[in-house]
Amino acid sequence: MDASHPLTTAELAQRLGLELRGDPAVRLRGVGSLEGAGPDELAFLSSPQYRARLAATRAGAVLLREEDAAGHVGTVILARDPYAAYARAAALFHPRAVARPGIHPAAVVHPEAEIDPAAEIGPLACIGARSRVAAGAIVGAGCVIGEDCEVGRDCELVARVTLVTRVRLGARVRIHPGAVLGADGFGLAMDGGRWLNVPQLGGVRIGDDCEIGANTTIDRGAIDDTVLEEDVRLDNLIQIAHNVHVGAHTAMAGCVGVAGSARIGRYCMIAGAAGVAGHLEICDHVTVTAMSMVSQSIREPGEYSSGISVMRSRDWRRNAARLRQLDGFARRVIALEREQE
Amino acid sequence: MDASHPLTTAELAQRLGLELRGDPAVRLRGVGSLEGAGPDELAFLSSPQYRARLAATRAGAVLLREEDAAGHVGTVILARDPYAAYARAAALFHPRAVARPGIHPAAVVHPEAEIDPAAEIGPLACIGARSRVAAGAIVGAGCVIGEDCEVGRDCELVARVTLVTRVRLGARVRIHPGAVLGADGFGLAMDGGRWLNVPQLGGVRIGDDCEIGANTTIDRGAIDDTVLEEDVRLDNLIQIAHNVHVGAHTAMAGCVGVAGSARIGRYCMIAGAAGVAGHLEICDHVTVTAMSMVSQSIREPGEYSSGISVMRSRDWRRNAARLRQLDGFARRVIALEREQE
Amino acid sequence: MDASHPLTTAELAQRLGLELRGDPAVRLRGVGSLEGAGPDELAFLSSPQYRARLAATRAGAVLLREEDAAGHVGTVILARDPYAAYARAAALFHPRAVARPGIHPAAVVHPEAEIDPAAEIGPLACIGARSRVAAGAIVGAGCVIGEDCEVGRDCELVARVTLVTRVRLGARVRIHPGAVLGADGFGLAMDGGRWLNVPQLGGVRIGDDCEIGANTTIDRGAIDDTVLEEDVRLDNLIQIAHNVHVGAHTAMAGCVGVAGSARIGRYCMIAGAAGVAGHLEICDHVTVTAMSMVSQSIREPGEYSSGISVMRSRDWRRNAARLRQLDGFARRVIALEREQE
Repeated sequence: MDASHPLTTAELAQRLGLELRGDPAVRLRGVGSLEGAGPDELAFLSSPQYRARLAATRAGAVLLREEDAAGHVGTVILARDPYAAYARAAALFHPRAVARPGIHPAAVVHPEAEIDPAAEIGPLACIGARSRVAAGAIVGAGCVIGEDCEVGRDCELVARVTLVTRVRLGARVRIHPGAVLGADGFGLAMDGGRWLNVPQLGGVRIGDDCEIGANTTIDRGAIDDTVLEEDVRLDNLIQIAHNVHVGAHTAMAGCVGVAGSARIGRYCMIAGAAGVAGHLEICDHVTVTAMSMVSQSIREPGEYSSGISVMRSRDWRRNAARLRQLDGFARRVIALEREQE
Repeated sequence: MDASHPLTTAELAQRLGLELRGDPAVRLRGVGSLEGAGPDELAFLSSPQYRARLAATRAGAVLLREEDAAGHVGTVILARDPYAAYARAAALFHPRAVARPGIHPAAVVHPEAEIDPAAEIGPLACIGARSRVAAGAIVGAGCVIGEDCEVGRDCELVARVTLVTRVRLGARVRIHPGAVLGADGFGLAMDGGRWLNVPQLGGVRIGDDCEIGANTTIDRGAIDDTVLEEDVRLDNLIQIAHNVHVGAHTAMAGCVGVAGSARIGRYCMIAGAAGVAGHLEICDHVTVTAMSMVSQSIREPGEYSSGISVMRSRDWRRNAARLRQLDGFARRVIALEREQE
Repeated sequence: MDASHPLTTAELAQRLGLELRGDPAVRLRGVGSLEGAGPDELAFLSSPQYRARLAATRAGAVLLREEDAAGHVGTVILARDPYAAYARAAALFHPRAVARPGIHPAAVVHPEAEIDPAAEIGPLACIGARSRVAAGAIVGAGCVIGEDCEVGRDCELVARVTLVTRVRLGARVRIHPGAVLGADGFGLAMDGGRWLNVPQLGGVRIGDDCEIGANTTIDRGAIDDTVLEEDVRLDNLIQIAHNVHVGAHTAMAGCVGVAGSARIGRYCMIAGAAGVAGHLEICDHVTVTAMSMVSQSIREPGEYSSGISVMRSRDWRRNAARLRQLDGFARRVIALEREQE
């Protein structure tokens, strides 16, 4: 993967603050996998299970743990966490997009919007009244920002992002295409056989360094705000309902749904397609595995599950049929035990 | 939450048709929660479990049930359903957006489209041939309306909504950003080892007063239309496949999926991330709880479930392993019973 | 359903290469269902269970199996697979959209983009540097194509599709509104208590004849590409994570999620809302039923399941409570067996 910022192995090790072993003058132009990297690319070995690939690699240098370096003759950079070191190295070769200041002539900016001269507003973007975009921020092609929103310093709205109303982004927030922040929360009251809308008067607050995936939705609050603290990472197609509060450094994988007013702690990991019911609390440092359902508060850190893995359908159907009679069978076991006493 | 329409407590009670107790001259400017509302705001108490908050509230007036008003010294408005009354009150303070008639110069309207002079077409919206937009309707920024669509009176397409083709909206339909109505149904036929597309020739019909959430998708029908009757409420990230029929006043929470040709009754409630298989019927007044799967018709009103709540992963894994052997264990129970006879 | 290409029954049978029985001169203008079709429309009977509708149909001709034609007096066209024949017939009456060459004046095309003169670029579309659009391709209204993308011959991006960067589409690929291809994969490394982004340097490669549904997301790879081979069919609201590889002719229904680096074979069918974990393999010809979770590799063709169908909530709750104790009950059954020996 060619990059615009070539570095020698010595420069790279120094920039990463890590120890180099081998040739300090290898010129690296980018990163690659152990199998695919060429002599001007950096690779990494994060798990001993891939050590066989190390012998065969053509990479100019490899990031690895000291214990995995033994016996390898090529140039290496030693790291306690090679994957994190790789992430930092790759970011040196491929830095984040930098704003090209200015408003594209095909953008539509409301006269009451405030755009910092050091912000970039892309083609066919639209920015509403009383919204502000700070210095260094990028509002990509086709984004729609409604009224009373704030885009913080160095944010990147990649393209076609929508901030509906009263959405405030901290600094360095990245949002991927199709994401919708600040749509009406789903607040309904039944009244005489018809639904009444409950006006959604809150907003959305997103902390510094959050990332929000493609086509993810985060509704605005009913009265108070929906909140993501700093460094929250959301993958694609996630639904965050109104008045949810997500603690700092929590990450959620694709297709997760979080219902209204749930409060999720810091450093949680919610795996793909898991669901979190409304009006409950999950404490810090909780992991929920894929396709699991959290319907009561979790008050102790740890890993929680309720997903079921597939088996042959004909076998599964027999088990699923028994599951529908499970309480009866449990009672029969209890009865058998009584008779045996 | 400041609003543009201040009202006195007496005016408000009169507009709601409810009984006021206390000071008729409190000037209210908006609504808030029991904890957060100030002296010029209205709060509500919908459940006795929050009565402790009532004593401490600074709200100018509180909507509540008569039985919860006993002993409270502040100004109250009595309602049998305080949440519904709150919804109506909040809508008085914060009325829905009203169309600002006209076509934004940065919109692209096909010469064969018909836009009522009392409709609002926002910036960077695009409207195709033979589509019509009625009086009072708002087509927000970045919306794309294809050919042969109809947007009824006082509809609101908030922003970046897509109506692909042959989509007809009744009156007062609200659609949130990223929603896609009228995309091709997923109709395929295998032919000589390759997929053939089955042309999707139907449309989508949406009844009056429906609401459709952000990034929700509703496909058009194969031959006949996909139909939502009046007052159907869909949250975000819902998939409605081709030829589905949803009865009036039914509500679905986020991440629900409904497969092709399913027929769902009136006044149903489908909770988050539940799934409904194709070619089946669900009768009126059915509730399906979160993450449940409906794979056969439901012919009696009531509440149905199949979701499983999380437990500690190490405990869950043991149970899930037994679940894979459940039929065997059931047979062993039966054998034990036989031996005991 | 009226079409622009009327055909006689004789012409139609000849175009389809099928045998006609009855009147060769019926003028057909389109297709319909057995119940809804009129005398100038073609219907089809694909299953004997609908034979009762055959007697009552007003359709000008019916596609059916020879064994279902017995006793029917109307004009019929015989097909071994009437549904596939219907798909081909409907495509004759309603051919796919054809590009109207040219770039709409309200589109924004980067000077370094290459647009074939025989391609159609719709209003408010935006195409970035070094991206190419081939002859016959349609880039619909509001699409955003970033940098270094390729749109192959006769592709159709219906409207508001986003190709972020390094996305290459083969020929005849159709993408529905709201789909996002080539967004950053969800690659994170924890470093000193904060998340680090792992730059996503790969792209997305989509084979010929693929179809991608509304609001579906396909992330670009971390180092190598995310790949769909030819004729893959994805429904709406599907998440395909980075470095997933999907084999030719595989189809996935709505709301499926596939985690990173999963490798799915050819001719697989993944039903609605199923989930596939990362870093595993599914061989060719595997069917996964709705709402099932694949968390280990599948090495033999066949049908796999883990979804559970609803029952009355009160009954389900009793069973679900027992499920949480299942390992204990299984041990009690084993103990009972031991005592009986």
